[in-house]
Amino acid sequence: MHYPRPLHTLIDSLKKLPGVGTKTAERFAFQMLDWTEGELKEFADHLSHLKSQLTSCSTCGCLIEKESCQYCNLDRRDPSQICVVSSPRDVFLFEESHLYKGCYHVTNGLISPLEERYPQSMRFDALKERVIKQETKELIIGFDSTIEGDATALYLKELFADHPVKISRLAFGIPVGSSLEYIDEGTLIQSFSGRTHF
Amino acid sequence: MHYPRPLHTLIDSLKKLPGVGTKTAERFAFQMLDWTEGELKEFADHLSHLKSQLTSCSTCGCLIEKESCQYCNLDRRDPSQICVVSSPRDVFLFEESHLYKGCYHVTNGLISPLEERYPQSMRFDALKERVIKQETKELIIGFDSTIEGDATALYLKELFADHPVKISRLAFGIPVGSSLEYIDEGTLIQSFSGRTHF
Repeated sequence: MHYPRPLHTLIDSLKKLPGVGTKTAERFAFQMLDWTEGELKEFADHLSHLKSQLTSCSTCGCLIEKESCQYCNLDRRDPSQICVVSSPRDVFLFEESHLYKGCYHVTNGLISPLEERYPQSMRFDALKERVIKQETKELIIGFDSTIEGDATALYLKELFADHPVKISRLAFGIPVGSSLEYIDEGTLIQSFSGRTHF
Repeated sequence: MHYPRPLHTLIDSLKKLPGVGTKTAERFAFQMLDWTEGELKEFADHLSHLKSQLTSCSTCGCLIEKESCQYCNLDRRDPSQICVVSSPRDVFLFEESHLYKGCYHVTNGLISPLEERYPQSMRFDALKERVIKQETKELIIGFDSTIEGDATALYLKELFADHPVKISRLAFGIPVGSSLEYIDEGTLIQSFSGRTHF
């Protein structure tokens, strides 16, 4: 379509969202034209300040506002358990279910040689340091049930082979081949309670 | 979910888009966290300047950049035909099909008493003035095939009852009950050529 340039650039930006093609981006853009100047400004402000207002905790890698990390407060969290997840997003899922009071460690991705994601670019060294420092007794692997998740879990098992830490993995309830992102709270609780020795 | 506040407000903004619920908004927001600061800034700029860079032509109501309206340039467009549409969005559909060289008139909505949209709030008076001034021979009604579209088309027919202008309506090819927004170019061309006397 030969849209005016400002509309065209907006549509191009919207097409970068996951699962959004041209038609959907066009619908979004025309809806945005109906928003008030104030609503657009507010949205623009959220976007502009997103990165400056959010940061990753240097210890656990969780997404936090610019203040001390609530997930690393060892007065309130159990240092003997660390749940290892691939993305800060997964932490919110665990927190929402209120079943876990241990610590988290975000690896920032799963190993995937095909997509050129190797262990070196992930936060495994930091994890090893934490396990020793916190005298952690259990690592709970909370990865997706995918080839990449399996590979990364195996890598972790090897990494801690000479270590007395117990390694478990979310087991019951994760539909095989799917991603953590789509799991409902009930399934998550089932899979958390049914975690098996790895 | 107990997201950090900046993430939460972004998700709330995204949920205002059509067809976007909480889960989709969350996916969009986390994808945006992966965008560079530059990409976010660029998107924010598009949003901030959207309304200031786009305007409605005071004559036809089409969406234009802040310069003269290309659709009202009577050296290049045929003043004897006016295609009446409910939204500026529909104009792009007609233009994309390259089948029409007449003028446009955007009513800014369809009559719907249930949603408190009455003829008074639409651009019908301006249309009547244009028809007289431009000595228009044909009004082509390009409304959705919905109850609101039918009602508005009937209203237009009444409005020009004492006038020699011919009124036609897009006929062949619009799937009954659906909206213009979803019509492909081929269907539009069919429905344009097969328009019937109204």
